Amino acid sequence: MAGGRMKLELSRVVKGSRLGVLKGLGRMGQHSLEVPGCLVYTHFGTVPHLTQDTLRTLKNLPSVTQVTLSDIAEHQEVLEEFRDGFRKFAGLPDTVLYCSLHDPAATSPTGYTTNKTVSVWGSGGRIELTVAKFMALQKTVQPDWYQSMADGETWQNNTSRKRVRKSVDRTLAHLDECLLVHQNSQELEGVEVFGMVEGGDILEERIRSARETAKRPVAGFCLDGLQTGSLQQDLRTQLTAAVTKELPENKPRLLQGVGRPDEVLACVEAGVDLFEGFFPFQVTERGCALCFSFDISPDSERAVLELNEERDAAGDLQQNGDLDEPTKMTYFEMNLKDKRYQGDFRPLVEGCGCYCCKNHQRAYLHHLLVTNELLAGVLLMIHNTSHYHSFFGALREALANDKLDLLKRRVLGRPGQTERKE
Amino acid sequence: MAGGRMKLELSRVVKGSRLGVLKGLGRMGQHSLEVPGCLVYTHFGTVPHLTQDTLRTLKNLPSVTQVTLSDIAEHQEVLEEFRDGFRKFAGLPDTVLYCSLHDPAATSPTGYTTNKTVSVWGSGGRIELTVAKFMALQKTVQPDWYQSMADGETWQNNTSRKRVRKSVDRTLAHLDECLLVHQNSQELEGVEVFGMVEGGDILEERIRSARETAKRPVAGFCLDGLQTGSLQQDLRTQLTAAVTKELPENKPRLLQGVGRPDEVLACVEAGVDLFEGFFPFQVTERGCALCFSFDISPDSERAVLELNEERDAAGDLQQNGDLDEPTKMTYFEMNLKDKRYQGDFRPLVEGCGCYCCKNHQRAYLHHLLVTNELLAGVLLMIHNTSHYHSFFGALREALANDKLDLLKRRVLGRPGQTERKE
Repeated sequence: MAGGRMKLELSRVVKGSRLGVLKGLGRMGQHSLEVPGCLVYTHFGTVPHLTQDTLRTLKNLPSVTQVTLSDIAEHQEVLEEFRDGFRKFAGLPDTVLYCSLHDPAATSPTGYTTNKTVSVWGSGGRIELTVAKFMALQKTVQPDWYQSMADGETWQNNTSRKRVRKSVDRTLAHLDECLLVHQNSQELEGVEVFGMVEGGDILEERIRSARETAKRPVAGFCLDGLQTGSLQQDLRTQLTAAVTKELPENKPRLLQGVGRPDEVLACVEAGVDLFEGFFPFQVTERGCALCFSFDISPDSERAVLELNEERDAAGDLQQNGDLDEPTKMTYFEMNLKDKRYQGDFRPLVEGCGCYCCKNHQRAYLHHLLVTNELLAGVLLMIHNTSHYHSFFGALREALANDKLDLLKRRVLGRPGQTERKE
Repeated sequence: MAGGRMKLELSRVVKGSRLGVLKGLGRMGQHSLEVPGCLVYTHFGTVPHLTQDTLRTLKNLPSVTQVTLSDIAEHQEVLEEFRDGFRKFAGLPDTVLYCSLHDPAATSPTGYTTNKTVSVWGSGGRIELTVAKFMALQKTVQPDWYQSMADGETWQNNTSRKRVRKSVDRTLAHLDECLLVHQNSQELEGVEVFGMVEGGDILEERIRSARETAKRPVAGFCLDGLQTGSLQQDLRTQLTAAVTKELPENKPRLLQGVGRPDEVLACVEAGVDLFEGFFPFQVTERGCALCFSFDISPDSERAVLELNEERDAAGDLQQNGDLDEPTKMTYFEMNLKDKRYQGDFRPLVEGCGCYCCKNHQRAYLHHLLVTNELLAGVLLMIHNTSHYHSFFGALREALANDKLDLLKRRVLGRPGQTERKE
């Protein structure tokens, strides 16, 4: 079997939600990751705006860093010359390196996959990858864990059944080829492979993809083609639950392209263990700060109501379910460019322990944003990353203490909750 | 007299160069600044790209932070509402706050001063300041030290004698008005005022401006209108030396708009004590890294030669004296966007102790830059700020040990020095 020591230990399964620890990560098996959990999102190995020094000041940061071939592929030659792998090239600390195909915060053009190739888009344009090139890249990157090559072009609503079936077939063929190269590569000894589950929005194809992938010697599964913007949450929940039912209990399931807190909660209930951590970056890029509550302590009522005020003010934002552009502001954040923060001397989130909230007020952030000061991105990224990963901590705590329903009410800020304010 | 406890203690004067400590800075007089020295440059109170946490990791950072009214003026209302001054608004730590009129890294349009007003340009456009508004701003900002209002529009080569004379007259009048308001303001008790020396490139006007300003109760002097791009270094040296001769020995002289290492060295010899710290920011914005040597230890030959290689490669860069755009690359830096750094796995500067050099190589910075990664600016700003302030440390050490000539040879990388390489 390809792979190493990765092992999922579940401590609790409540309805569909799984609580546990993914152990044995990294070449020496020294790292672990709590689930439900989320990876550290990067561009070319760096969390946008932040140095590793700054990152280290954030508490509860996961031990797994995600890099993408779309960032890396065009630098293959230099990396080969460098020889010591991407982790060292990017000056990353002792972290587990997970290598995926695409950047979850970007939408790739469709129409470029063939029977033998997939394409990624770097800053220099499109790069076509055969399995051979894909695997050569993995040997150069030297990740601890990577997703196999896949034809993921079936996420659009109107994809035909024939095209979906082809994508499942191709993806299984790619996986078999990847595993063959992998098993014959000394350089990849101990490295884990995740199989890709495709199937668009067609239930039977999803189930077929899951079953067939589960037969292969993979360490875990990536659920592809269910990202925000591609389908309604109801359908996502239904498809995800159907897929996870087919997958072995003891292997982790990573859902690609989903990061919104409401969607995360629904997908955890559908049996998902891992998410990509790109959402705080998207929020930062639009000049917003995450401000949703996930406080489930008994005396948290007040804080929640205050945060809800921010959201009520956001007014016309959709709370749930629309097929919105992933770049559009959501119900979970405040738009600090808005004039009403000009004279607001409170921290972004009262009680938040992040560097930004401890040192700066909303008014200052507002002014940094309207004057295009680069520090705005740094400070927002600190807060949003901290807030988001704390949300995952609260989610695990809620699962451990049978409080998932309370957490959901907090996060979703149900109307009933807001009305009590008066 | 306006002002507080600021006091310059000179320990050494070698030819024109002055070594000493500016003491009694800050409202409580608890801070000091070594001269020749340089201030911390900011945009709206923040060192571009860097959090205060990151800043704190840089050694030898000066105790004085410069903010500009061009950043602040348009936010006067909010600051007035905030009440606690700009330092607290911007989340600045325990630093001395110096407030100047213009951003030294930006060129202001000319043709907007009148007898009664000067203008600053913020992100929202031009703001006209009378002395009353200027002083109201100072009361809101609550700096420890500010420059008086001045008509500085005479830095262009072709300014007529009549216009220069008018600018000197106006600036003296502004100073008198500022001092009058200052002395009657309880809020400004203990705050220091620097008088502005104008005079364009006309020696007699420079001398008149210096003599007249020196008669006023100011804590120090700003030399205005001599910035990089406005005149040749020879003329700058001549005018500066003539001005400083007229100024009292025991008060500091700050030269505005000059930051290039070769120009700094020449101006220190002409009697300048303080410089603005904008140069590392300009270098960062063009994707470059400072790499000039200032190592005057006995075994530094090798390092110097290596750095010179970088410069030789830079080829067509002017070494000295041209009236170049301040945004143009200088002889003291390397352009990391250049393809030759693509596979260069050395740190920016061998032996540099900054976070960037300790953790990353040139090749990585190159890739961050060509892919427009925001961390590139963060990392370059860390290195460039650290390198530049270390240069000032080396300059003081050279002055203390009679090694200024050696330092100059190192910094300027004289041809004789480079030839020895073979």
